[in-house]
Amino acid sequence: MAHPLFTPEVQMLLADNDIEGIRAFVETLHPATVAEALADALAPDEIWRFLRHADIKSQAVVFEYFPMELQVQMVQGTGRQHMAQLIEQMSHDDRVDLVRRLSRPIAEEILRLVDEADRKDIANLVRYAEGTAGAIMTTDYAWLPEDITVGEALDRLRLQAPDRETIYYVYVLGEQHLLRGVVSLRQLILAPRAKILRDLMETDLVTVRAADHRSEAARLIARYDLLAIPVVDDEGRLVGIVTYDDVMDVMEAEATEDVQRLGGVGTIVENYLQAPFLTVWRKRAVWLACLFVAELFTFSALASFEHAIEKLVVLSMFVPLCISTGGNSGSQAATLITRALALGHISAAQWGRVLRHELRMGLALGLTLGVVGFLRAWGTYWFEPHLLQGSQGSVEWWRLALVIGCAVAAICLWGTLIGSMLPVALKGLGLDPAFASSPFVATFVDVTGITIYFLIALLVIPGLA
Amino acid sequence: MAHPLFTPEVQMLLADNDIEGIRAFVETLHPATVAEALADALAPDEIWRFLRHADIKSQAVVFEYFPMELQVQMVQGTGRQHMAQLIEQMSHDDRVDLVRRLSRPIAEEILRLVDEADRKDIANLVRYAEGTAGAIMTTDYAWLPEDITVGEALDRLRLQAPDRETIYYVYVLGEQHLLRGVVSLRQLILAPRAKILRDLMETDLVTVRAADHRSEAARLIARYDLLAIPVVDDEGRLVGIVTYDDVMDVMEAEATEDVQRLGGVGTIVENYLQAPFLTVWRKRAVWLACLFVAELFTFSALASFEHAIEKLVVLSMFVPLCISTGGNSGSQAATLITRALALGHISAAQWGRVLRHELRMGLALGLTLGVVGFLRAWGTYWFEPHLLQGSQGSVEWWRLALVIGCAVAAICLWGTLIGSMLPVALKGLGLDPAFASSPFVATFVDVTGITIYFLIALLVIPGLA
Repeated sequence: MAHPLFTPEVQMLLADNDIEGIRAFVETLHPATVAEALADALAPDEIWRFLRHADIKSQAVVFEYFPMELQVQMVQGTGRQHMAQLIEQMSHDDRVDLVRRLSRPIAEEILRLVDEADRKDIANLVRYAEGTAGAIMTTDYAWLPEDITVGEALDRLRLQAPDRETIYYVYVLGEQHLLRGVVSLRQLILAPRAKILRDLMETDLVTVRAADHRSEAARLIARYDLLAIPVVDDEGRLVGIVTYDDVMDVMEAEATEDVQRLGGVGTIVENYLQAPFLTVWRKRAVWLACLFVAELFTFSALASFEHAIEKLVVLSMFVPLCISTGGNSGSQAATLITRALALGHISAAQWGRVLRHELRMGLALGLTLGVVGFLRAWGTYWFEPHLLQGSQGSVEWWRLALVIGCAVAAICLWGTLIGSMLPVALKGLGLDPAFASSPFVATFVDVTGITIYFLIALLVIPGLA
Repeated sequence: MAHPLFTPEVQMLLADNDIEGIRAFVETLHPATVAEALADALAPDEIWRFLRHADIKSQAVVFEYFPMELQVQMVQGTGRQHMAQLIEQMSHDDRVDLVRRLSRPIAEEILRLVDEADRKDIANLVRYAEGTAGAIMTTDYAWLPEDITVGEALDRLRLQAPDRETIYYVYVLGEQHLLRGVVSLRQLILAPRAKILRDLMETDLVTVRAADHRSEAARLIARYDLLAIPVVDDEGRLVGIVTYDDVMDVMEAEATEDVQRLGGVGTIVENYLQAPFLTVWRKRAVWLACLFVAELFTFSALASFEHAIEKLVVLSMFVPLCISTGGNSGSQAATLITRALALGHISAAQWGRVLRHELRMGLALGLTLGVVGFLRAWGTYWFEPHLLQGSQGSVEWWRLALVIGCAVAAICLWGTLIGSMLPVALKGLGLDPAFASSPFVATFVDVTGITIYFLIALLVIPGLA
């Protein structure tokens, strides 16, 4: 939600160049609120004129809360030297996200001015591919050796605390940064001051590898109710931590991706009203055009049954009903299976169980809908008897009703099987099962459903071929 | 993911009645792992025979990690007295979830045996409706008065700490539990011991009301990167806190609900493979049957254009192509808008802006697809010229191509408008916009699309009426 209430205040502070007021505004409000108020009220260059009155640490904290597109835009609007100072103050994971999105020459110009330790840290983190745990981790964790006492540990933590992303989990490291255990600040507060960390720490650790998918970090944090999860390399050395707040952003982003893929939108992660028209048009048009071209085959399929349609026009009138049944049952199955895969309730290896389950379910659903279809087709005998009249004599009502009932049942089963197996197959191939979107499944089942429908009609109604 | 590796170990420990081994197993592993291993390997009554060897506190911690259905089942399998002890040890929010799901007589029998303070706490929390912040909050927070020093605060916290859900945020309360501020444990560790809490605490607080929707608590925690959010009543008194780990569960549950509604599945929150067949069949069949009955109108719509189809059969062959365009563009728009509403990027009040945006987008998309449709229909002149032959003379190729092109463009625009306005309207009415699912929008646009298509055909092709 926007903060339109702050807009006049922010604009007035800037117009009056009220340095005291600006400082108070930045320091009393939560940085998320400040960022939102500034982004709403001011243009990017005005935001810099406003922010420069606060100290560089506060600037960095507010800057991190701007949407990524605005951050990238704002990098252009200030000096390289200032940007380098800001980057030194930003949290280790957020600044890497930013650097990743800058053009290479600009990033290099700025990084040349950043102090050496920070520059190395950025170069180290930027190596991890997007979507991995490494790409969302921070190197800004608190750590201690294993042979000190709780009292010493608390004293050392007081020195580390102001800089660390979290001090509520303290990692206990051995030689060469090998991860030995973890103690929580709660444990440290409660333990006697003379106790040695080695005897206090938890050693049954939940960890991820840097190359693991970020959703694995999210899953483990959620499952074990952790504040942060340590990220280790192949030798078990601690290379970073992923904190719960970054994981929440991951969960939101992944849910958006899933929903958009399922809806056949492609991935449009940008803010709906702010995304540029042409970009969105292109993304949406590509998906729709692909589906449209695939759907062209419905015409070809129908044209190949031209004679049957000419002999009995009523057959063509049941086509949308029959094929939509397959689209709906397919999209329902695809949604259920995709979500079950995402939540880890099933794995691709269990495809046999899923197939058996959906076979029974598809039959049960098909029979249910088939009966309704049969009754409606029977209804033509009472309500639209002239439709039973074909160009070469009339068809018995029960034959038409049988065709519709069987076609609906068969296509419903077919849609259910396609909708359930496609996400499992995609997952098995290492692709995102959410690509088996409702529109995609519906389009595929539309084309094949027409063939199933007319084959049944040719079988049941004599003289149609 | 399951822990099949533990199954033989767990079964052997139980078979040997190895009390020491069982205790070690429960105490060394993370309770989430223990819960999963037991749920996989043992029947509910065997789980009790296993767990009773651990102390009651450990039993409670493991019990909380069982899926809710198993918890309810397990309540039946043990004595009321034992269950009452377990409930006294469980965390305040989880035990209320459990009590909520028990039948009233059983819940009352057990609660009668729970000690008075805990019973009152449960009775207090159980009042809040499901889906509210009150229903997921815990009363197990750490709090302190405002006029003590940091040193005293740390000493008092050491006494409270073992029982509290979190001690990383400490709430500073005035008379009558009025919420004055919050200090983090990090601040307490860093501050001089003589400083008064009042001078240290944050007073710019982000809070929710107990009656607010739980997703509001989730949104604020994610936006402000909080560990917990205080829940207050109308007078500003602290009544509980919602912690980040409960919010993660909320985010997952809400994402599942959204995805399932969008896919036209209804809400099936249970685990896919464990949910009972008949329940799932009923939920899925109800949705499919509703869509099927709505889709019956496609037959009626087509039957009302019977004469046009009889005169020019090729018209019926383009029906699936034209109406699927509307379904796809509609489901795309509905998905985008529903997600944008869920993320707070747009609000229902901005429907005018959304309408203008989607009007332009629908026109742009419609023109794109309309051109492809025009070209394909023109293709009949080259590839299927006999299809242009109607029962009352042949139709010019350009008239057919014009009908298809215009119909595709019009139906695409129509689908986009329906798909975008329906979620906004549902939201405006206080309903969940995700009910504007892909299959629902597609079905609606199928029926209306047929009418649009034939009206254009009647207009462009003379002698069809």
